[in-house]
Amino acid sequence: MTMNQSIARLNTSDANFQTQLQQLLAFEESSDHDIHQRVIDIIANVRNNGDQAVLDYTNQFDQCSFTKPSEMELSQAQLKAAWDSLPQDKAEALEFAANRVRVYAEKQKMQSWQYTEADGTVLGQKVTPLDRAGLYVPGGKAAYPSSVLMNAIPAKVAGVRELIMVVPTPHGHTNELVLAAAYLAGVDRAFAIGGAQAVAALAFGTETIPAVEKIVGPGNIYVATAKKLVFGQVGIDMIAGPSEILIICDGKTNPDWIAMDLFSQAEHDEDAQAILLSDDADFLEEVANSIARLLPEMERAEIIKASLSGRGALIKVASLEEAAAVANTIAPEHLELSVEDPEKLCTHIRNAGAIFMGRYTAEVLGDYCAGPNHVLPTSGTARFSSPLGVYDFQKRSSLIFCSAEGANTLGKTASILARGESLTAHARSAEYRLK
Amino acid sequence: MTMNQSIARLNTSDANFQTQLQQLLAFEESSDHDIHQRVIDIIANVRNNGDQAVLDYTNQFDQCSFTKPSEMELSQAQLKAAWDSLPQDKAEALEFAANRVRVYAEKQKMQSWQYTEADGTVLGQKVTPLDRAGLYVPGGKAAYPSSVLMNAIPAKVAGVRELIMVVPTPHGHTNELVLAAAYLAGVDRAFAIGGAQAVAALAFGTETIPAVEKIVGPGNIYVATAKKLVFGQVGIDMIAGPSEILIICDGKTNPDWIAMDLFSQAEHDEDAQAILLSDDADFLEEVANSIARLLPEMERAEIIKASLSGRGALIKVASLEEAAAVANTIAPEHLELSVEDPEKLCTHIRNAGAIFMGRYTAEVLGDYCAGPNHVLPTSGTARFSSPLGVYDFQKRSSLIFCSAEGANTLGKTASILARGESLTAHARSAEYRLK
Repeated sequence: MTMNQSIARLNTSDANFQTQLQQLLAFEESSDHDIHQRVIDIIANVRNNGDQAVLDYTNQFDQCSFTKPSEMELSQAQLKAAWDSLPQDKAEALEFAANRVRVYAEKQKMQSWQYTEADGTVLGQKVTPLDRAGLYVPGGKAAYPSSVLMNAIPAKVAGVRELIMVVPTPHGHTNELVLAAAYLAGVDRAFAIGGAQAVAALAFGTETIPAVEKIVGPGNIYVATAKKLVFGQVGIDMIAGPSEILIICDGKTNPDWIAMDLFSQAEHDEDAQAILLSDDADFLEEVANSIARLLPEMERAEIIKASLSGRGALIKVASLEEAAAVANTIAPEHLELSVEDPEKLCTHIRNAGAIFMGRYTAEVLGDYCAGPNHVLPTSGTARFSSPLGVYDFQKRSSLIFCSAEGANTLGKTASILARGESLTAHARSAEYRLK
Repeated sequence: MTMNQSIARLNTSDANFQTQLQQLLAFEESSDHDIHQRVIDIIANVRNNGDQAVLDYTNQFDQCSFTKPSEMELSQAQLKAAWDSLPQDKAEALEFAANRVRVYAEKQKMQSWQYTEADGTVLGQKVTPLDRAGLYVPGGKAAYPSSVLMNAIPAKVAGVRELIMVVPTPHGHTNELVLAAAYLAGVDRAFAIGGAQAVAALAFGTETIPAVEKIVGPGNIYVATAKKLVFGQVGIDMIAGPSEILIICDGKTNPDWIAMDLFSQAEHDEDAQAILLSDDADFLEEVANSIARLLPEMERAEIIKASLSGRGALIKVASLEEAAAVANTIAPEHLELSVEDPEKLCTHIRNAGAIFMGRYTAEVLGDYCAGPNHVLPTSGTARFSSPLGVYDFQKRSSLIFCSAEGANTLGKTASILARGESLTAHARSAEYRLK
């Protein structure tokens, strides 16, 4: 099999297209009973024994050698030193990205509102930031400074009083890029811990590590399992699945560009999903040829190849409108509209995490510095959820302030409905306020 | 023990107050391994066998006698007939409530926005409604028409194309008030099914029941377990805990009013939590006396008594500001500020589902018809979550439309950062668009 054949070809005109599409999209997250039980035990231990449990797990799992809990904290001086020692081009690039992410995030900030009715009753909604938020940053190869910015900046823009980062430091090695990004983003405190023990510490607090209201950020299966288990005690962001890109192209973009855009998601990992839709059958073959030609040049060729052959597809559609319908079914994390009139096509799109419009808008610009968040709903969850944003670090409280007149009017209705539901204390509570 | 002593008394000046408070608030939801496994089986069966599984479970668990799947649907004509046969006072009260809920909900509707940068690059956020939403309505005594309005109206205001209600009809008996409220609220389709099988049907779809994007509404332990298990496949609202009210009073409200406000939550169920904070010790005793005097008159006296003695408290605080701090720790579902200057006190409140301001604003007005939603975060989750609202039936997609100039500027930064993260396909995808 040559590379030319190593990506699936589908056609919406095939009778069994929907079945093929569902098979292509199917991805069941592994759920391991042993891991589940181990994470339950870790959480219970941290909850009961606090610092000592976190310290023991960290020394054991991360091969650290902490002797007392305070040593787990990374000082602001350490974060600043990491920032100060960054090469200038990297520092400037991170600053440029951080500024753009901040400007965009500011537009998302929810504001309180209220209105007064004719009888003087005031109704409204009060918006407040979370008190504290926790940001999980993975150790090792998946530790991206861009992710630190994307998770931390919205929290700070929301006005979260204290933003606490946890990042494992295997064998005591810190990731200087991550610490520098944390400094730039305004992380308030940082701890050199990771895994389920870090999630448990943030959820319940220890003598040293403050409890937070919400935990965000990506992690491995232990971290994801721990986040699910502490949900309710604290808020969590989404549980991220593999990266996805869906490109709709009218056949007039350079096929090498499109091939590289597919690669840019495929290189994340073997489970990543890169799909191209076009109404131009010849163009699909041109892209297949670009893939075959460019793949050998890529540093992560093996990962890309596995991703494209396992979960990728080139799909012939009858029209761009039909492509939009397929996109709405898939509800991709990233959607590129590489077409002549992307704004028109965009009106047909309902389900997508982020929409990249026009031939110049490579998806990767959104990964780093365009401004919108790169933490996006995956695995079709864009059907009902949204990119990470400032709003995830704010909450709303309803406000009701009845005038005497308002309480009289509302009380009469409340009394009728409460008695209809046989809730007579409800009814009498309202009736006391009648004139 | 007389009734006068049957509610706990705490004082913030006691050395062990924080411990006592945490004990008072502690509530672990029961998690039953057998139920968990049974629900997993039900979901798998519905997923594999569709209509037939739903029909079999419904006949078995709800003692229905459906012979074919189409019989499970409640027609629009049935809903309309229920509405048409409502007594006039109830119909008017429901209409009054629905209108107020709708007016308030309209203010919550999120709008799309975008802005254009100097180089022509456009950034924005597109807001769209969910395609379909599912509303679970319990059968039996917990089936409240007010809940139908509170869950359905925000979905319709959001623009959800199809709102599907499920409500069990044990022995084939429909709840006419619920059907009438569904008609009023604009429910599009309704099915006489319930339990985990109804949640599974809504999450995965069957031949007869359409799959939805999000499932909202309260239910028993089977329903709550099923909602948790299908989360990810669909969105869900919160998992509701017992009702809660926290009242802060300066001692100048009629103590009978305050006692009845406490009763109004306590009558929901034995696990409900009703707490009063006051800086006036004498007033706390007056309320205790009102409780003792009024309790024997109440239809649900046994439930109220169990709730107040098991989970209620009268708490003496040093000041109203201290009361606000305690409220922020508790993060109650409902918070009454029954004080002279509630707006001033409200500035100190950060964590509460809904805030009822002033002596006239009985919490029950919010349960039925004030306008704000009565589906609110419980069990301290107001620290990080919000009332149910229109925004729960909308989602956001990020928009990025780069000009050639913009792609050039952003691409340079993206390239530096991508190469810093060793993601060279990312870098090359950006570099293709450089001038």
